[in-house]
Amino acid sequence: MRASPGSSDRILATYRVSAPFEESRARAEALAVEQSVEVPLAAVRSDYVRDEILARVVSITRQPAGFDVVVAIAAVTTGGEISQLINMLFGNCSMHTDVELIDVQFPAGYGASYPGPRLGIAGLRALTGADGRALTCTAIKPQGSTLAELSTLARTFTRAGIDVIKDDHGLADQTFSRFAERVPAIQRVVTETNRETGRSACYAPTLTGSPSAILEQVRIARDCGIRAFLVSPMLIGLPVFAELREMVDAAFIAHPTFSGGARIAPPVLLGQIYRMLGADATTFANHGGRFGFSVASCHDLVRRAREASPHWRPSLPVAGGGMTTARVDDVLDEYGIDTMLLVGGGLLAAESIEAESRAFVERVAQYRSRR
Amino acid sequence: MRASPGSSDRILATYRVSAPFEESRARAEALAVEQSVEVPLAAVRSDYVRDEILARVVSITRQPAGFDVVVAIAAVTTGGEISQLINMLFGNCSMHTDVELIDVQFPAGYGASYPGPRLGIAGLRALTGADGRALTCTAIKPQGSTLAELSTLARTFTRAGIDVIKDDHGLADQTFSRFAERVPAIQRVVTETNRETGRSACYAPTLTGSPSAILEQVRIARDCGIRAFLVSPMLIGLPVFAELREMVDAAFIAHPTFSGGARIAPPVLLGQIYRMLGADATTFANHGGRFGFSVASCHDLVRRAREASPHWRPSLPVAGGGMTTARVDDVLDEYGIDTMLLVGGGLLAAESIEAESRAFVERVAQYRSRR
Repeated sequence: MRASPGSSDRILATYRVSAPFEESRARAEALAVEQSVEVPLAAVRSDYVRDEILARVVSITRQPAGFDVVVAIAAVTTGGEISQLINMLFGNCSMHTDVELIDVQFPAGYGASYPGPRLGIAGLRALTGADGRALTCTAIKPQGSTLAELSTLARTFTRAGIDVIKDDHGLADQTFSRFAERVPAIQRVVTETNRETGRSACYAPTLTGSPSAILEQVRIARDCGIRAFLVSPMLIGLPVFAELREMVDAAFIAHPTFSGGARIAPPVLLGQIYRMLGADATTFANHGGRFGFSVASCHDLVRRAREASPHWRPSLPVAGGGMTTARVDDVLDEYGIDTMLLVGGGLLAAESIEAESRAFVERVAQYRSRR
Repeated sequence: MRASPGSSDRILATYRVSAPFEESRARAEALAVEQSVEVPLAAVRSDYVRDEILARVVSITRQPAGFDVVVAIAAVTTGGEISQLINMLFGNCSMHTDVELIDVQFPAGYGASYPGPRLGIAGLRALTGADGRALTCTAIKPQGSTLAELSTLARTFTRAGIDVIKDDHGLADQTFSRFAERVPAIQRVVTETNRETGRSACYAPTLTGSPSAILEQVRIARDCGIRAFLVSPMLIGLPVFAELREMVDAAFIAHPTFSGGARIAPPVLLGQIYRMLGADATTFANHGGRFGFSVASCHDLVRRAREASPHWRPSLPVAGGGMTTARVDDVLDEYGIDTMLLVGGGLLAAESIEAESRAFVERVAQYRSRR
């Protein structure tokens, strides 16, 4: 437990509502009620509840296809932990399909309740020995590959000089790829190959399943020297991720699967919230790839992941979702070198996976800012 | 661990895509790739992966605002547990804002991997003594109320004959309402009042927070005789709920908060998936209330919660989200008496909460089918 915020502190949540502007006042007041007391105002009989608990409408702004509402939510209602925070920010109103959560601003000091990244960007650089340049990342996949096939891929990627080799997020603990067999075997391959190359490539297996399954996976992984994990916070549960961050001294790379896209804006969920929970790196689907994230949304996400904070180390943005070697310079021009570039299928579909992986690594190493 | 499905079994997932029909073939094939191997087909070099792992497009059907795609996903890729199942059903494609998951059909035998409700409808009837009629439910709230205020409400509701008195889903473990103080105190009030009335009203506190916080809450609650819990699976994490169902011999009432963020149709997520994970009762926002659930969606949800299954007990649908006593007959005409009616704010805003609660209970008790 960390310090609780003072009872008068408010969190400013901005909702974008796709509804006629004439309805905006009524919708805004309804949002403030729904996301706090969740009873008709006639049922609020206590002064304390009306003054300190009920959320308040701060502003309503007309937008091209509706309006934005800023609601001030009492920080004390969030209980200082993520499940209740999300409940207050986007619980019941998530069921209104015309409402999106597009911004969250915490009052001073609130962030102290959440630890943020344990390693952050500097820690990930130290872990992988990647200095003065962007980091590189790829995935062993597809699921269904034999352990021998995955091991060959891991060896190839390590030899080529990739910094972080992660499990595909589809590799879980299936009958064809048991965590307990896969993870020690792949880690052995990466460690051996690191010895040949003199580098520090890092293998990040996926944690999935129930809390007790995950704890067992962590035990297996730690026993064989794993220092980084891929986690999908929305799949395993945001509070599970938060607790893992507290319990396990390792790097966490967050994956955006099941993050839902439109309803909580990706900059808020993937950039801000995953960081506050402890993502040392946060993966997002870069614009121009297979997903529809806008340029503005990607830039906002990168900013939120890295911006200075009194409470949280910066989180390393990981641009993926259809990246290729050909895009390296452009992406680094956009985001700078405190970025990890994730090329997955783009390497695997090449005629020579090793040659393409080396080309990717060299392109990143040779990049010089053109700005 | 239960039996795994055979490797040739397929799960049929139906996606509704809001995009031009001309794009449907390409979009459908891309969905099949994204939700299985997640690499370009050129990178699929193994026959096993192509034949047994890669998802297949089964059909494409034109719809008024786009098209539906049925994709056959290899059951073996889901690992027999919920986080990986959701990953395969709606992981990456949740980031495509024009895609919704509207139906899931499991192959024969697949359901055996998931336990379904422990008590189900019959068990909830036995727990509360509600026989031959619909069940009644309300919530103690708003958050921020003192323990004395919440206790008074609990006493009033129990006296009035309500079957299930739950915490508001906003009551968590805040500084103003500590779980460890609130829950034993409210349970004592309900137990004492049950002794006066000779009934078996059941108090269901909310479980929130990290897995270890929840385990501690369960311990506190079980020590004071609690036999039912309110859980919000999307807030605590679907796998956390699944593990709770395995570990704790109690009734679970699922709450739909934060269920809308991921664009899985409510009948599928709240009716089918929450049931398979073990929800003895599943709460939904009934049409005509504060949320936009359609009539067809509510009926589909109720059907999926209760329909016969070789694997799962029926789950009790809980109609809420703006219910009032005046609507009791209509709602029961629609859904029948294997339903729980949740009136929250409608009781709390009344001039006499006790009189309104009694009127609600009597209306439900006196209901006779008009069909």
